[in-house]
Amino acid sequence: MKRSYRRRRVWLRVSVVTVAAAVFMPLPETGAAEPPACESKPSISRHHLLPANNKTVHWGYFSKSRAPTVYAHSGDLVTVETLTHHANDDAERMVKGDAGAESVFQWEKGSKGVDRRGAGPMDASIMGRGAGEGFGVHILTGPIYVCGAKPGDILEVQILDVKPRPSANPNYAGKTFGSNAAAWWGYHYKDMIEEPKPREVITIYELDTSGEVDWAQAVYNFRWVPQTDPNGVVHKIIDYPGVPVDHSLVKEEHGVLKGVRVPLRLHFGTMGVVPSEQDIVDSIPPSYFGGNIDDWRIGRGGTMYYPIAVQGGLLSLGDPHAAQGDSELAGTAIETSLTGVIRVVLHKKEALAGTVAQDLKYPLLETKDAFVVHGFSYANYLAELGDKAQQEIYSKSSVDRAMRDAFRKMRHFLMTVKGLSEDEAVSLMSVAVDFGITQVVDGNWGVHGTIRKAIFPENRQQ
Amino acid sequence: MKRSYRRRRVWLRVSVVTVAAAVFMPLPETGAAEPPACESKPSISRHHLLPANNKTVHWGYFSKSRAPTVYAHSGDLVTVETLTHHANDDAERMVKGDAGAESVFQWEKGSKGVDRRGAGPMDASIMGRGAGEGFGVHILTGPIYVCGAKPGDILEVQILDVKPRPSANPNYAGKTFGSNAAAWWGYHYKDMIEEPKPREVITIYELDTSGEVDWAQAVYNFRWVPQTDPNGVVHKIIDYPGVPVDHSLVKEEHGVLKGVRVPLRLHFGTMGVVPSEQDIVDSIPPSYFGGNIDDWRIGRGGTMYYPIAVQGGLLSLGDPHAAQGDSELAGTAIETSLTGVIRVVLHKKEALAGTVAQDLKYPLLETKDAFVVHGFSYANYLAELGDKAQQEIYSKSSVDRAMRDAFRKMRHFLMTVKGLSEDEAVSLMSVAVDFGITQVVDGNWGVHGTIRKAIFPENRQQ
Repeated sequence: MKRSYRRRRVWLRVSVVTVAAAVFMPLPETGAAEPPACESKPSISRHHLLPANNKTVHWGYFSKSRAPTVYAHSGDLVTVETLTHHANDDAERMVKGDAGAESVFQWEKGSKGVDRRGAGPMDASIMGRGAGEGFGVHILTGPIYVCGAKPGDILEVQILDVKPRPSANPNYAGKTFGSNAAAWWGYHYKDMIEEPKPREVITIYELDTSGEVDWAQAVYNFRWVPQTDPNGVVHKIIDYPGVPVDHSLVKEEHGVLKGVRVPLRLHFGTMGVVPSEQDIVDSIPPSYFGGNIDDWRIGRGGTMYYPIAVQGGLLSLGDPHAAQGDSELAGTAIETSLTGVIRVVLHKKEALAGTVAQDLKYPLLETKDAFVVHGFSYANYLAELGDKAQQEIYSKSSVDRAMRDAFRKMRHFLMTVKGLSEDEAVSLMSVAVDFGITQVVDGNWGVHGTIRKAIFPENRQQ
Repeated sequence: MKRSYRRRRVWLRVSVVTVAAAVFMPLPETGAAEPPACESKPSISRHHLLPANNKTVHWGYFSKSRAPTVYAHSGDLVTVETLTHHANDDAERMVKGDAGAESVFQWEKGSKGVDRRGAGPMDASIMGRGAGEGFGVHILTGPIYVCGAKPGDILEVQILDVKPRPSANPNYAGKTFGSNAAAWWGYHYKDMIEEPKPREVITIYELDTSGEVDWAQAVYNFRWVPQTDPNGVVHKIIDYPGVPVDHSLVKEEHGVLKGVRVPLRLHFGTMGVVPSEQDIVDSIPPSYFGGNIDDWRIGRGGTMYYPIAVQGGLLSLGDPHAAQGDSELAGTAIETSLTGVIRVVLHKKEALAGTVAQDLKYPLLETKDAFVVHGFSYANYLAELGDKAQQEIYSKSSVDRAMRDAFRKMRHFLMTVKGLSEDEAVSLMSVAVDFGITQVVDGNWGVHGTIRKAIFPENRQQ
């Protein structure tokens, strides 16, 4: 395999140069020529390495004018490092000694490793929080340009492996840490019973890096108190991502959730391609292009299918989670840096008939055992809500609407992919499809519908 | 065990006499003396047999003035036959030759095996559908009077076994059948894409009675066409339960859902005690007292805990289902007659501290692996919506409200039963509790929250 190895090394050098040179670039018009990096498709698939650092991540938004970090052909593998945007809740455990994380979270007065955080104005003229205003919070690695991808095609992303990122602090060798923030955007926030209310509480969890222990446990929690960032802005609440928490100001309560073991569900909360409707799109509301779906089933062994909206697709992923329940009730999961191995497969629009991606206009998950459709309050909020969509979606969150959308998508899947009549599809939905509440914290709230593969003769494993 | 056997026989004789003599009776005032049948508690638990026939079922409602069919002491077992109210969708397969079912479904002009069907007026003066108006549809077996039960106590119901009721028609030996109605109250009904619309469609499913096959399959479906009942009332839609379908009028489409295997989930859609707020309560909307929760997890191995509202508790069960998805989207499950074996255990209010039933004000499910709380659009719609609650609940259905209620109940469970602080409970909910949509078809819509037992040291099986 020496040849393959050499090819990979060559690619890496080229790729890094590209990233350093041009963070934003004009997007080629649809129908434009493919970039030079795509010109010759190698005879065997390549395995790219995409580390997470301040050159390879974008923070809080999707953008069609963001320069690709990797140019991948259909069938290529990519090892992708992803960082949690909550690492600075406990920098000792989640940033210190980790060169990639340090480059991203670096922040001194007037200097940030990644300045823009969110889709808002760079001068923070609306809220004064900081560049990008925190309108969008997730650290996303990418984008990955998929050679030959055009609007109307479908991008398949197979998640071959997901592993926790070990703490780089020798004091915590063998451990990985994550943060759960019960935050102001949480579902519980205006509905508390204990004093003082409201309040934001961060719980730090730990897991074993070996992969042999399948649960996480709490280490301590603390109440958020106003934090002053290196630029002098005071954050009374968690309103900007990556603010370093000064642990001399907070009171760590150890011994919380004693004996409680949280089953691991390693997954990417946010993964998706770039929408065409607007540029610089808040990373928080999920939509037809995927994004912040926050379905814990999008982990190892899962395969996502996304409708491609712009040339190259431009896949990014991040918002890594160690565990999350259906609803992500308090606003976050166990937010933990993870490294994934994915394979990208391009399905051209003219070859979709008869596949699971036929006429697909929404993000579809296939797992070992099931197909899962993702419904939202608005199936395509950018198109449906117009120019102010990115603000208005937050006032239109609704589980009821998301259920309606999930019902329609599951019916579409059963009629299109499985060839059922509407009557067959509706009966089968009533007796065999499970609808669950994906999240109630991401503006465009989500309901997913799950149908098991064993139901269908063509999917049954005999 | 001869002694036990004789005692049971004695009881059975007494019980049948009671049922035949007084179907309705004045309820003893709270604090009244226990009925004579409860006076001497035997030294060992008894096993009662409660067949389903026109003397032991009530159709479409819960009522505190309904005479008990069984008087059980805490710890007693009851084998309970339950009948699906959809059996007359295909009487050949689901009624014919079955003496119990025939006695219930018997209907000739001016004579019905069970006249009242629903909580409406007996003279059908509102809609003209028939006695009880079909305001409530489920055939419920019972009630079971639990000796010593008082308001404020908790009734635990362990479901030890659930088995399908074989077809009594020799042409269908070894099979059990069920009906799925995609009906006018279904979630899809005003949101169809194929013509003609709207339409109601019934799909007949079959399962194996041996218990060795774990899936059901469709036999045929047909569109509902107007059916004239034996009293001459025309039912243009499925608006009254137990109307015999004339199969010379419908077109059976065989070969539907070809090759599709629906995984079995035998369970009781409706089980609960009697509410105190009103008498003759529509069986459709679930509430604090249980009732038509339609959670498919309420099957074999499950244990329900209900807050008791009236003396004796008065447990009834029915609405048996062979399979259902979370949402029961089209309005029904695979509606199939089942026989269960349950154990009733009474928990007196003064002994609830430190148990899973501490301060319990809602129906709680415990399975082998999990605890499940049940939230509704209105936690107690009878109390919250006042005199017109039974009508108004249908215009106030909301998944959003049910999610809010389920969140509050899960928080209550974690803080009360598991002793967590609010901050611990909220964090754990976000990372480990799954919220799903139980049903969107029962007026008082449902969301359930599930937390796995393995999370807690005291529930972990080492």
